[in-house]
Amino acid sequence: MAVNSYLKLGQKPDKTDIVSVLKIVPAKGIILKECVQEIAGESSVGTWTEIKTLDKKTFDKLAAKVIYINEKTGIVKIAYPIKLFEKGNISQLWSTIAGNIFSMKKIKDLKILDITFPDVYVNSYLGPQFGIEGVRKAYGIKNRPIVGCIIKPKVGLSAKETGKLAYDVFVNGADFIKDDETLTDMEFCPFEDRIREIVKATKKAEKITGKKKIFAFNISAPTDEMKKRARFVKKTGGKCIMIDVFTCGLSAVQDIRSDRYGLIIHGHRAGHSAFTDDVSMLAYSKFCRLAGIDELHTGTVVGKMEGTKKEVIEINKFLTGRWGKIKPVMPVASGGLHPGLSFQLVKILGKNLIVNFGGGIHGHPDGSGAGAKAALQSIEAASKGISLNTYARKHEELKKALKHFKK
Amino acid sequence: MAVNSYLKLGQKPDKTDIVSVLKIVPAKGIILKECVQEIAGESSVGTWTEIKTLDKKTFDKLAAKVIYINEKTGIVKIAYPIKLFEKGNISQLWSTIAGNIFSMKKIKDLKILDITFPDVYVNSYLGPQFGIEGVRKAYGIKNRPIVGCIIKPKVGLSAKETGKLAYDVFVNGADFIKDDETLTDMEFCPFEDRIREIVKATKKAEKITGKKKIFAFNISAPTDEMKKRARFVKKTGGKCIMIDVFTCGLSAVQDIRSDRYGLIIHGHRAGHSAFTDDVSMLAYSKFCRLAGIDELHTGTVVGKMEGTKKEVIEINKFLTGRWGKIKPVMPVASGGLHPGLSFQLVKILGKNLIVNFGGGIHGHPDGSGAGAKAALQSIEAASKGISLNTYARKHEELKKALKHFKK
Repeated sequence: MAVNSYLKLGQKPDKTDIVSVLKIVPAKGIILKECVQEIAGESSVGTWTEIKTLDKKTFDKLAAKVIYINEKTGIVKIAYPIKLFEKGNISQLWSTIAGNIFSMKKIKDLKILDITFPDVYVNSYLGPQFGIEGVRKAYGIKNRPIVGCIIKPKVGLSAKETGKLAYDVFVNGADFIKDDETLTDMEFCPFEDRIREIVKATKKAEKITGKKKIFAFNISAPTDEMKKRARFVKKTGGKCIMIDVFTCGLSAVQDIRSDRYGLIIHGHRAGHSAFTDDVSMLAYSKFCRLAGIDELHTGTVVGKMEGTKKEVIEINKFLTGRWGKIKPVMPVASGGLHPGLSFQLVKILGKNLIVNFGGGIHGHPDGSGAGAKAALQSIEAASKGISLNTYARKHEELKKALKHFKK
Repeated sequence: MAVNSYLKLGQKPDKTDIVSVLKIVPAKGIILKECVQEIAGESSVGTWTEIKTLDKKTFDKLAAKVIYINEKTGIVKIAYPIKLFEKGNISQLWSTIAGNIFSMKKIKDLKILDITFPDVYVNSYLGPQFGIEGVRKAYGIKNRPIVGCIIKPKVGLSAKETGKLAYDVFVNGADFIKDDETLTDMEFCPFEDRIREIVKATKKAEKITGKKKIFAFNISAPTDEMKKRARFVKKTGGKCIMIDVFTCGLSAVQDIRSDRYGLIIHGHRAGHSAFTDDVSMLAYSKFCRLAGIDELHTGTVVGKMEGTKKEVIEINKFLTGRWGKIKPVMPVASGGLHPGLSFQLVKILGKNLIVNFGGGIHGHPDGSGAGAKAALQSIEAASKGISLNTYARKHEELKKALKHFKK
């Protein structure tokens, strides 16, 4: 069988095909057409040599089709028949279209820019349990971004100290607080103690303010341990769990989701940048939505972490839009944010957003409580379209924050 | 607190520190010293700004220490106090030392070359259940590499066809066969049917040959589903399961390992290359050994997949050597191999190896059975230090393979 039969340039993908968009830089001396055929083979029915065990029937049914090649840009499209995939299984999807193809000697550089899925495949997943609507309902907030806060220092506070800090930040304006991604069950801050202290602090803050407050407890661990921790959060009265989705892996996330704890799943993406050089965050965020994350970190544009404006807008647009029957995901902006950036941030990314402040709250000259007030003030101003400087005239904490973080 | 207190150049790490070796290329206009301090901060107690909640006691106890900087090569070493880590939790380790640091705008390029661990940390993990000794015992093979075969085509055969092919390959010489990494529970080849057919074929081949034969069943899926599949393999009489470790994630692997099914865990690494650009395969293979993989794909040097000679030798040396109290891992060479490469392969990588042939068996001019014979012959020759051409004089299948795959 001639190898070039993977080439179906100009052919329309079937309605049920999964289509991958890739950018390829071939290795020296290799032409693009050769690369992309090898990719189509390796990711469907082929291998590096002709084999006796592959017949025409199998090839016609299961071979990937190269439907587009742009010699100038190196961008190609490959359409995969849906029969190549096990429904509802992200690791199988990932191993197929984003697996061995990255290891081939003939390719110098390869990035998966996007993957599109037919509804019949999307709908084989649970997706988020709460989604944006459920998340907003849990916070009781309709028309502005959620004001979030990250406990800082990342690590080092005891359970009692964390509870105290959480109370201070909640009562002064934060809607949401999260554990740091590196904080799990630590000697200096045992998981169960922390949950107990924080749930107490949360309930107290809710009573005082009359508003809903949510804390995301980082349950990242081996899957079974994650489940134990999720059950403990539920039992103790928590409403949200956090998972380091990339470092735990999506098999764990899918499993936690399918257990239906009735807890919002907050997805932190620590470590993703070591991967999303080669598979775009847009494609990875599709995996996360399938897996059932309710709130996902996607970039800040204006903060300390990478991610271009175009890229983050595109991801957030995907997460908040319609996709088969599965619910939309609330995007989270987190990393290097402070009140002085809120106006710009909301202008770029809109109101369907959790805005997380860490140093931007705890670094306030008057401490974390004042920081939380300033953060909320900045988000209120931004949501009403009032400039921060104008709003700061009547809001002392914001005024101080703007002055301090400008330095 | 002055930011430069992360710098402890020339200081020896504590015996219980975890030490990370990184290669950094700073972003334009940023100096290396600034980058590495930001990394030390972000991966321990710091953030992008000074915060009110971080006191000296916490800093002294938990801050990472930059102990080495080489301005010329960009190589730096960071020592992390063990208190920063939850024992036995890979995702927490990963999020800490290989998490957000990849996303920082001040860094143009960053690669974690290696991570070294104190025994007290290593020993908090289960590690492999079988290890090299247990694996060799299961195969009943002492002094040569294990001859493995990958079912090809990757996908498309029915359960019955797969069973038939497995029998043919087993009876003709293969010790080991594995599912392809993209084959899980498929419409055209349901998981349970496949297991039943293959276990039958394996037992028949064992009876005919009087030798032990092992098939690795790919159970990759959401964690709970993986467990169901592992239990089914055990119940049906299988001896080995395969996991796509990177695409499933190590939380799932740790959990499967801790369930102690008494099944060898074969670790496929599909997709790793999208990640190991930034975190070396050496470092990732340490994660996999902690998690409890018995057999791990590490590269072929001579085959179709990437991985330099130096790199693969270093990884295999680590996997097969002593490491705290946890067992060594059997390295697997897989991808683009054929009998003509066996001598060179064993010379480079030694006999503690599973050598997987896919196209190198099924592409044999006389079919898969002859291919399996040729594969075994090539490994026998290589193990005895006899040149392949010499051995081929009395071994027809090898002779044909050498001629065919040279083309």
